Amino acid sequence: MIIQPATRTLSVKEYYFSVKNKEMARLNAQRAEAGLDSIINLGIGSPDGTPPVEALQTVALEAVKDGVHGYQSYTGIPELRKAFAAWYKRYYNVELDPACEIQPLTGSKEGILIISLTFLNKGDKVLVPDPGYPTYTSASLMAEADIVKYDLKEENGWYPDFDALEKMDLTGVKMMWTNYPGMPTGAQATKELYRKIVDFGRRHKILIVNDNPYSFIRTREHLSILEVPGAKEGCLEMNSLSKAHNMAGWRLGMVAGEADYIKEILKVKSQMDSGIFRPLQLAAVKALEAGEDWFTELNAEYYRRAEVAYRIMDVLGATYNRNAAGLFVWGRLPEGQKGVDVSDRLLYNAGVFITPGFIFGKNGENYIRISLCATVEKLEKALEKVRNL
Amino acid sequence: MIIQPATRTLSVKEYYFSVKNKEMARLNAQRAEAGLDSIINLGIGSPDGTPPVEALQTVALEAVKDGVHGYQSYTGIPELRKAFAAWYKRYYNVELDPACEIQPLTGSKEGILIISLTFLNKGDKVLVPDPGYPTYTSASLMAEADIVKYDLKEENGWYPDFDALEKMDLTGVKMMWTNYPGMPTGAQATKELYRKIVDFGRRHKILIVNDNPYSFIRTREHLSILEVPGAKEGCLEMNSLSKAHNMAGWRLGMVAGEADYIKEILKVKSQMDSGIFRPLQLAAVKALEAGEDWFTELNAEYYRRAEVAYRIMDVLGATYNRNAAGLFVWGRLPEGQKGVDVSDRLLYNAGVFITPGFIFGKNGENYIRISLCATVEKLEKALEKVRNL
Repeated sequence: MIIQPATRTLSVKEYYFSVKNKEMARLNAQRAEAGLDSIINLGIGSPDGTPPVEALQTVALEAVKDGVHGYQSYTGIPELRKAFAAWYKRYYNVELDPACEIQPLTGSKEGILIISLTFLNKGDKVLVPDPGYPTYTSASLMAEADIVKYDLKEENGWYPDFDALEKMDLTGVKMMWTNYPGMPTGAQATKELYRKIVDFGRRHKILIVNDNPYSFIRTREHLSILEVPGAKEGCLEMNSLSKAHNMAGWRLGMVAGEADYIKEILKVKSQMDSGIFRPLQLAAVKALEAGEDWFTELNAEYYRRAEVAYRIMDVLGATYNRNAAGLFVWGRLPEGQKGVDVSDRLLYNAGVFITPGFIFGKNGENYIRISLCATVEKLEKALEKVRNL
Repeated sequence: MIIQPATRTLSVKEYYFSVKNKEMARLNAQRAEAGLDSIINLGIGSPDGTPPVEALQTVALEAVKDGVHGYQSYTGIPELRKAFAAWYKRYYNVELDPACEIQPLTGSKEGILIISLTFLNKGDKVLVPDPGYPTYTSASLMAEADIVKYDLKEENGWYPDFDALEKMDLTGVKMMWTNYPGMPTGAQATKELYRKIVDFGRRHKILIVNDNPYSFIRTREHLSILEVPGAKEGCLEMNSLSKAHNMAGWRLGMVAGEADYIKEILKVKSQMDSGIFRPLQLAAVKALEAGEDWFTELNAEYYRRAEVAYRIMDVLGATYNRNAAGLFVWGRLPEGQKGVDVSDRLLYNAGVFITPGFIFGKNGENYIRISLCATVEKLEKALEKVRNL
């Protein structure tokens, strides 16, 4: 290289699963040579199911038409914005103006960077949950903001400790990431929790960004932070079809909030990409029409899988919460064991990959995370391998 | 809003066409009420044709399968990287290692931001062509780099003036955007030009990023800057299926260069998005197999359209280069006329939208740009309206 990369990239490592997937590919090649079966990957939360059939039919029909192949508007087609609004009304009891309070995204991961670039100056502080999704941190680093971790602890139900937050020096804090049902913890929000978060943000002039992709997976009810009266003024919420509709690879997400915020986000987004391929937008419209039956069936399978994951946790002596939501089972290892050691031992000796909790922050060090994006058969095979170790 | 947007967004306006499309929507509503036909939009370069039929068949077949809906690898599927490498070998005579010298992108526009965030620190200088694609500037602003415009002038064939460049203070310049066939100018590169650019970058330790999406449209030959011996060491090249394969809405692009650069780019990219939807990647593989016949047919239509665009330029008294390449005709208005005035007059009085050259930089002020992404019939209707003004 004749030049050096920017300093903002120095603190950012290649995304953990990007590195780990390459390692597993190498290991699998070795295992194949040695006549061993492939590693059972219980790492990433990539739904293995099929999207609603109407969505598939739509993309197959629309993609072969004339006149659908050009650039799409940055704001998304009106049908999609209306479908997101109807979905929010139906499931979250939240009114959104499709004309100005919704911005479709090429997946909500993209949204994390766009929102960070839109609102964070170099040196601005941003509250990031520990444990939490690593992209909140890396996107903040891309914007050269300073990360202020806030603790989520099991003894507090993985909720923020508001007393501790109030005692922190909040000078210069401009934004706060929240995520319920939480990844990796599976903790579900309550209306009361969301009220507290909205109130905290409003009093301290901190923009709350709630990341809400898991609210249809193993949940008791579908909650949105935007249901709190007056929330839009100080909160954004991101959502996605990745988990609820088995469409992770399709890259379909959204952010909702007050029109002024959405306008600023659009300003940045319109510099960096174009609208989503029209047939995919039309398919998303169909997927968003899915009724409770779709989710009941989807979750029946995830509940079956969770039972096997619990047994893996049992074998490892880990404790877990059977009422947790989302695509993962999050387990606390016996006193003195670290997730990274257990994960490596399982990978190298049992041929099973389970994510070590440290990658989500220091409060995750004694935990491991099992993805439910694997069939019952696969999970049972993993259980057997872990048992035989 | 309870917080203010980041300063990096203050200098960035909403993307020009985003604003203009909204204005046209409003005007069209008024025109409909007044019984007038819609505005003829000869603005944006969004190909209106249909992609290679094999690509359409592939997406329709693949998208309805099981097992294709999860997250895809950040590096793209091997089939796609191999197809890009084969395409570069076949048409540009450039050898690329599909394993490490190619990174697929969700469109090359996304790549402009990723590359800027990867290599530009706050305060680093970046050479940006004037006139040129506005996104080079706005992505640099997102990275908080300082823009140094370099002049492209008609009298110099829209090539950089290397004598002037050498006389500039190049202290702190880290990157240079180049783009041939040029947008908006249509100027075609030569091997000699690319050699000079590579040499300039190497001597001054400036990373050259050549944006090459137009090399199949109305060109004499397909040229890549990477064909220059040793170019990979100091150059990146972006390319895309948007124009050459009528797939602008699909968001399929790539960047190629030395493995070390690609690795750094992947580090940033893996923080901000996921891989492209697998059926779209497989469709891209098919599209990239298109032979010379595809391009001959595609260009026959663009040449027909260009003839009508020339006549519009003639009516306006503008001069243009019949040997220019790409999706646009770029015309110099008669002495004393500004593009913005002519564009507004045509929009408000003739119901025809033609892009004013100033949006590409001060050297474009006396120019206008007609998009060839409109049928001959549409262009002829526009010609009539301009004639009757």
